[in-house]
Amino acid sequence: MEIFWTHLRKFVEIDEAEYAAVTTYFEVLECKKKENLLAEGELSKFNYFVLNGCLRKFFVKQNGAEQTTQFALETWWIADLFSFEKQQVADCYIQAVEKSTVLRISYQNYVKLLAAHPVMESYFRKIYQINTAASERRIRYLYEFSREESYLHFRNLFPDFIQRIPQYLLASYLGFTPEYLSEIRAKLRS
Amino acid sequence: MEIFWTHLRKFVEIDEAEYAAVTTYFEVLECKKKENLLAEGELSKFNYFVLNGCLRKFFVKQNGAEQTTQFALETWWIADLFSFEKQQVADCYIQAVEKSTVLRISYQNYVKLLAAHPVMESYFRKIYQINTAASERRIRYLYEFSREESYLHFRNLFPDFIQRIPQYLLASYLGFTPEYLSEIRAKLRS
Repeated sequence: MEIFWTHLRKFVEIDEAEYAAVTTYFEVLECKKKENLLAEGELSKFNYFVLNGCLRKFFVKQNGAEQTTQFALETWWIADLFSFEKQQVADCYIQAVEKSTVLRISYQNYVKLLAAHPVMESYFRKIYQINTAASERRIRYLYEFSREESYLHFRNLFPDFIQRIPQYLLASYLGFTPEYLSEIRAKLRS
Repeated sequence: MEIFWTHLRKFVEIDEAEYAAVTTYFEVLECKKKENLLAEGELSKFNYFVLNGCLRKFFVKQNGAEQTTQFALETWWIADLFSFEKQQVADCYIQAVEKSTVLRISYQNYVKLLAAHPVMESYFRKIYQINTAASERRIRYLYEFSREESYLHFRNLFPDFIQRIPQYLLASYLGFTPEYLSEIRAKLRS
């Protein structure tokens, strides 16, 4: 939990007493590698914050292949936010890429937390403002970059990530086949 | 301004006195068709809310072509949010598609507004949470849909929009050539 305390104070001023109250709205969850935290067709009850490990979000394409659309490492939030907001069933999966420890908050607790602790309105405003800005840039890159440029750009932004994520998942996220990713990597090494 | 008052109350509880105070942080701006509100290389000073008309965001590709990445109709916000947050120079343009009336808020005023009016933290938290959820869906669609499916999907979601936006801009947004868009439309009519 130390990581959440440190993380929160990067965004807002909060004292130990209020932090203790805030944490009562969350639960800690341990998940095994490849465990699904959310599956297509299930009610999207929770928003997840990664304390340790890595989660990913994917959907199943018409041809049956999994398409990864998001990763979440330590201190990142991940949810099917659209269905979480509306408390609807999800149309995607959230899965642990590795053994992970996460905080989760239910939609009901999220609403109560924001009503009881205005500092958390400010915190989530900053988080979602940053996410909106990051999504705007990601959408631009999807228009702008060739597949090889996407890989180079991602490698520059997240060098540790490239080492840590299984290559077939990274390929899926970048919209490649694993074979094409191997080709790019071989070309860059030569 | 009536449109901003109505819009705000969809998201938060605010009385007339506080609304009057909130509006002092904003300026109203009239813009001509094709007027640039922000150009690449300029400091990204403002966040814009459309009262009337339509704005778009685009960047200039290496081949010199304009790539539209976002439209904003009445009650939508638009900015180069990444450079607005960091008060850096923009790497894109914001332009009026038609004669428009907008509210704008400077970064300095945005910071002051949030500090003075916690209700606006709640408002912007909701706006950016919705934007994050919408971006997640848009990114999924960029992976999932063929070009023809993108057009059909967009037409179902925003029927009025399709009538209103010049076809060459819509084609750019969807990642088509104008010729390809004409072909799809002809095919759907036949």
